[in-house]
Amino acid sequence: MRYAVLGTGIVGRTIAAKLASLGHEVAVGTRDPKATLARTEPDGMGNPPFSVWHQDHPRVRLEAFADAGAFGDTVVNTTSGLASLDALGAVGAENLDGKVLIDIANPLDFSHGMPPTLDPANTDSLGERIQRAFPGARVVKTLNTMNTHVMVEPSRVAGEHNVFLSGDDEDAKKAVAALLIAFGWPQPSIIDLGDITSARGAEMMLPVWLRLMAALGHADFNFHIQGA
Amino acid sequence: MRYAVLGTGIVGRTIAAKLASLGHEVAVGTRDPKATLARTEPDGMGNPPFSVWHQDHPRVRLEAFADAGAFGDTVVNTTSGLASLDALGAVGAENLDGKVLIDIANPLDFSHGMPPTLDPANTDSLGERIQRAFPGARVVKTLNTMNTHVMVEPSRVAGEHNVFLSGDDEDAKKAVAALLIAFGWPQPSIIDLGDITSARGAEMMLPVWLRLMAALGHADFNFHIQGA
Repeated sequence: MRYAVLGTGIVGRTIAAKLASLGHEVAVGTRDPKATLARTEPDGMGNPPFSVWHQDHPRVRLEAFADAGAFGDTVVNTTSGLASLDALGAVGAENLDGKVLIDIANPLDFSHGMPPTLDPANTDSLGERIQRAFPGARVVKTLNTMNTHVMVEPSRVAGEHNVFLSGDDEDAKKAVAALLIAFGWPQPSIIDLGDITSARGAEMMLPVWLRLMAALGHADFNFHIQGA
Repeated sequence: MRYAVLGTGIVGRTIAAKLASLGHEVAVGTRDPKATLARTEPDGMGNPPFSVWHQDHPRVRLEAFADAGAFGDTVVNTTSGLASLDALGAVGAENLDGKVLIDIANPLDFSHGMPPTLDPANTDSLGERIQRAFPGARVVKTLNTMNTHVMVEPSRVAGEHNVFLSGDDEDAKKAVAALLIAFGWPQPSIIDLGDITSARGAEMMLPVWLRLMAALGHADFNFHIQGA
């Protein structure tokens, strides 16, 4: 399969590397590939620049958003949540129509200091906004409720824990569930929350996730629905 | 100990009955005790009227909010979230000062249809609003992330699962943790999320809780933080 992974941050790199390791062809999408490769400083989180990561993953392409979107049969949004609609606009509706669009982003707004708030929240969600803006895409919200390393290696967290799906297209959710199983998620760990409006609930887990990370002092944890 | 339990709904009844079963003296607080006892119809959820429940729990007092508040050494808010500040105003700041105020309520707003939204959410929480309105009270948000029957009988859900604490007063959180242990919660199941602003995260778990209840078809589940 061909995947477009939008976003060059740690989530995009981790998802792209996992997809490539499973034998898929992957194009990472960015606004300006030359500018992305020209960066030599670590990002704000201390992650090495993309070019360093890219040297270790030469099979992963780096493309402008539209080219990555045209390349991918499936598109994965790992951009910063507040920038996601712009990034998807640069991909172009014509490169999203009919495709499964996996939305991992959280609309975290750091502009008012820590802890971040969500924008939107409560009466809307990023997942819904993306579905409304690109009605031809088959949006599935998933994986946004955990650390990126847990996304692609669920066994990092011992014991049972869960990953959620939200989306309007049942076949798209089935396809995403199959990908999650390939990532290492046991079938019973995948919980279908319902239509894309249920992305509100999944995104609204972020504030308690951030508090839990602070309270526990690490990010190798996940939500487990006991009694499910 | 003497407890005031504010609210005559299913949560208030369940908490009051549990406290009484543990040997505590309990006053349930309501706006107008005569009116509460005069009701003969089931509530909107099909629960029998309070008077029927009260016949089975004669040791539990029913008092006006202020009288219940004066009676209790500890106050438990189980009122409907959108009515909680009014109910606590009727209790009176003088009956809350210095006391542990356990806030179980969720600010669910059903006025725009289903599913309900939260009011407030994201940049504020009911727990914080209560703490600001009654600065002399020692507010601890807890138990709001599960069905009321699980609150007082955690073994209904097999396996490990968690209950959260949010509050500014460390001694108050210790006192509430001791009560939770008396309710049947193992000490390691109690997670301190931090100060009262962390009530945002706990309250924002309600939307996904409601979706999970719909997806699972029952309410005997709870959040378990795997890897904690």
